Amino acid sequence: MNDNSTAQQGATYEAAGVSIHAGDEAVARIKNSVRSTFRPEVLGDIGGFGGLFALGTRYRDPVLVSTTDGVGTKAMVATAAGRFDTIGLDLVAMCVDDLVCQGAEPLFFLDYISIGKLDPDHVAKLVDGVAEGCRQAGCALIGGEMAEHPGAMDPGEFDLVGFAVGVVERTEIIDGSRVAPGDVLIGLHSPGLRSNGYSLARHVVFDVAGMSLEDPAWDAQDAPSLADELLVPSVIYAPTVRELGSQVEIHSVAHITGGGIGGNLNRVLNDHTDAIVERGSWEPPRIFAEIQRLGSISDEEMAKVFNLGIGMIVTIPESESQRALEVLESLGQRAAVIGRIVEGTGAVVLS
Amino acid sequence: MNDNSTAQQGATYEAAGVSIHAGDEAVARIKNSVRSTFRPEVLGDIGGFGGLFALGTRYRDPVLVSTTDGVGTKAMVATAAGRFDTIGLDLVAMCVDDLVCQGAEPLFFLDYISIGKLDPDHVAKLVDGVAEGCRQAGCALIGGEMAEHPGAMDPGEFDLVGFAVGVVERTEIIDGSRVAPGDVLIGLHSPGLRSNGYSLARHVVFDVAGMSLEDPAWDAQDAPSLADELLVPSVIYAPTVRELGSQVEIHSVAHITGGGIGGNLNRVLNDHTDAIVERGSWEPPRIFAEIQRLGSISDEEMAKVFNLGIGMIVTIPESESQRALEVLESLGQRAAVIGRIVEGTGAVVLS
Repeated sequence: MNDNSTAQQGATYEAAGVSIHAGDEAVARIKNSVRSTFRPEVLGDIGGFGGLFALGTRYRDPVLVSTTDGVGTKAMVATAAGRFDTIGLDLVAMCVDDLVCQGAEPLFFLDYISIGKLDPDHVAKLVDGVAEGCRQAGCALIGGEMAEHPGAMDPGEFDLVGFAVGVVERTEIIDGSRVAPGDVLIGLHSPGLRSNGYSLARHVVFDVAGMSLEDPAWDAQDAPSLADELLVPSVIYAPTVRELGSQVEIHSVAHITGGGIGGNLNRVLNDHTDAIVERGSWEPPRIFAEIQRLGSISDEEMAKVFNLGIGMIVTIPESESQRALEVLESLGQRAAVIGRIVEGTGAVVLS
Repeated sequence: MNDNSTAQQGATYEAAGVSIHAGDEAVARIKNSVRSTFRPEVLGDIGGFGGLFALGTRYRDPVLVSTTDGVGTKAMVATAAGRFDTIGLDLVAMCVDDLVCQGAEPLFFLDYISIGKLDPDHVAKLVDGVAEGCRQAGCALIGGEMAEHPGAMDPGEFDLVGFAVGVVERTEIIDGSRVAPGDVLIGLHSPGLRSNGYSLARHVVFDVAGMSLEDPAWDAQDAPSLADELLVPSVIYAPTVRELGSQVEIHSVAHITGGGIGGNLNRVLNDHTDAIVERGSWEPPRIFAEIQRLGSISDEEMAKVFNLGIGMIVTIPESESQRALEVLESLGQRAAVIGRIVEGTGAVVLS
């Protein structure tokens, strides 16, 4: 509110806290970034009522796969650190990496930003991050909404929501039905928390341990800051998994998000198989051990809330495992065999 | 937080404010409601990584149309009034009524709910509203996300975001190119604010006028409460507009949201036409006059922020106008001729 009283001038949207000019400026600043994600199928330009994507005639029996997700309270860490440039990558990762679990190619993406006070610079950085994620994932950013929520949110506060649509031929849907005893689990390395478990992580590092974002993340001379560790951008696995699938037979793909390995791997098992995951078969990034130590968190709780350094688990026949690891290495993706499939009832055992 | 200290028991997700059990209960309570929206194209059930929709082979050259929107700070009014059952309808309206502007049939919908403290009863009511909206719009609710944001939001606070995907044959896209001098504008009645202008409306009625939601909306014995007026559910025009389009030649469709009639009708004009809207040709619902009076808001500002009782404007050849009004009446949709198209440069004139 400025000094002009409402009674004298009449109430306006601006006086009520909604900055139409800031919105226009933000839209102007993100246009190039958004257009950089366009694929040939995108029709029209920014500003229509809906985003248009010409699916065309190249699919025999197309099944659309869609998902929505947010970045959770990782947004609060980004706000506190004043870093808005990479959380858009997290958002894209959360969404498109759900699509590849069913074998779909990500086609397009829409984002929704709610913010207490629309700062064109912050919004431009957020959308630049989303656009970078879309380029990495190969999908077009064809729509979005910016909503200013004065009163409902503090000025610097924001929430980021994403929506992704992909396509898969009906006969090529990955649904876990082919998972069989003898298959192996390939774990794809995650360098950080992705976008899950932040309410617990924040509780532990800020409330319990009383740390600040500038503090070293652990006790070592070369330790990164807590902000660096908590804001590590999520790897976008979709292109890697799709390339792997073009060279190796894949039986299931599980994106490790909320619920951890146990709560996600079980979603892609069939009812006559169990998965045995060997927790000693990979080295989790140090931040997980630090959070566990600071919060005296049980192993069970850690495994339910965090990815523990494995962001994606692909199930393949054992005969393909050497080749799969070679493909992943050639793509620059750290990976390891982290377990195997046995006869069972659809359970995941962390041993 | 309960009495168990973190140091004694070890930190948990529950202690950090994220209620996994409440989340599970909420999911259990919404399942039937969500399934009631399914169309034959929906594959699988609730709980997969992505929602699956078999587009099939009935389209020659399908173009997907997608949009995202929220309900703005109408959510704050709903929270304050303790009414969670109809704002989901507003959400669906905001999204699917963007899709029909390009001629698309709404196919599926996803919702995202962020909430300070996950109350299964509130969430179930929110999703029931979304599901009711999807049934009205004829689209399937095939995905969603519930995010509990302790610390970031007050316990009763929530935000609701929607994503809709539709399809249109490439040759049947409505893009305003056929709008021509002589066409008439048919305005579809809106009984309330839909989901736009709430930051200004709230500022006026609460901050300036000091009213409460239980107060009568205006000075009359039979006046509805302010809560009733501010929470009037949005009409979902999509099925009506699609039915109209099957019987009458439509040249453009404009969904009147933020920016009002001028800011939306101009999005569907071509550069050799103007639209002349006659403000006296329909009677706006009384709530708009009350907000204007209480806030001493100028006519110009009112027209930029609110729909003023017209939620959708369809442009058709004048020769079709009588038939269009008959079709709309038979569908139970109040409508009127509210203006005409003349030669021009893409401007909207409110006369």
